[in-house]
Amino acid sequence: MEQKTQIAVGVIRFDGKGLVPVVVQDAGNKDVLMLAYANREALERTLEEKEAWFWSRSRQELWHKGATSGNRLRARSIATDCDSDAVLYVVEPLGGGVCHETDETGNNRPSCFFRALL
Amino acid sequence: MEQKTQIAVGVIRFDGKGLVPVVVQDAGNKDVLMLAYANREALERTLEEKEAWFWSRSRQELWHKGATSGNRLRARSIATDCDSDAVLYVVEPLGGGVCHETDETGNNRPSCFFRALL
Repeated sequence: MEQKTQIAVGVIRFDGKGLVPVVVQDAGNKDVLMLAYANREALERTLEEKEAWFWSRSRQELWHKGATSGNRLRARSIATDCDSDAVLYVVEPLGGGVCHETDETGNNRPSCFFRALL
Repeated sequence: MEQKTQIAVGVIRFDGKGLVPVVVQDAGNKDVLMLAYANREALERTLEEKEAWFWSRSRQELWHKGATSGNRLRARSIATDCDSDAVLYVVEPLGGGVCHETDETGNNRPSCFFRALL
């Protein structure tokens, strides 16, 4: 692992389960696309490969987003917040919509945040 | 409580601690400002008062963002994601910067996500 990756990941305050929430934002239109979680290895891989990796809480495994669908996310920039307990991936979607749910036309929705409450 | 608030909050899948992560995005420049948490009451109040409320995990109390500083956040729209386990507040900051940390000029930073990792 590169030293700069070690330093970057070293500041993150992972929770009791070893996870940190990750906000994913589109580098182009700045839409918030999804919220997911990363463990240390997922964050390290994202920093080194410049593609978004997460920890799937449902499958309990490392998750290279889009590895099977082709809808990978290129990481343009990554930041953490003032408390170092949340991460922001600013990404370029390389395939279709990010969400596993589809719209009326059968296409994957570009963002998971499509259910309006207000 | 209004019935539409009850319906909106009823779909949310709060975690084992009764919380849901909330991404806060600026309605104007679309910057991601912060990540915080809401319990049921915080989300209800946000929907009804159209100002951002959270649950402070450090203080273990309801938190009306900006109530003391004046830097309140007007809620323009609120959405949940495909799994209903994350919430997005799209807000208009009514005061100064959202973050409690200050920049070189002594002003509150507009976004908590100012520490670049990549």
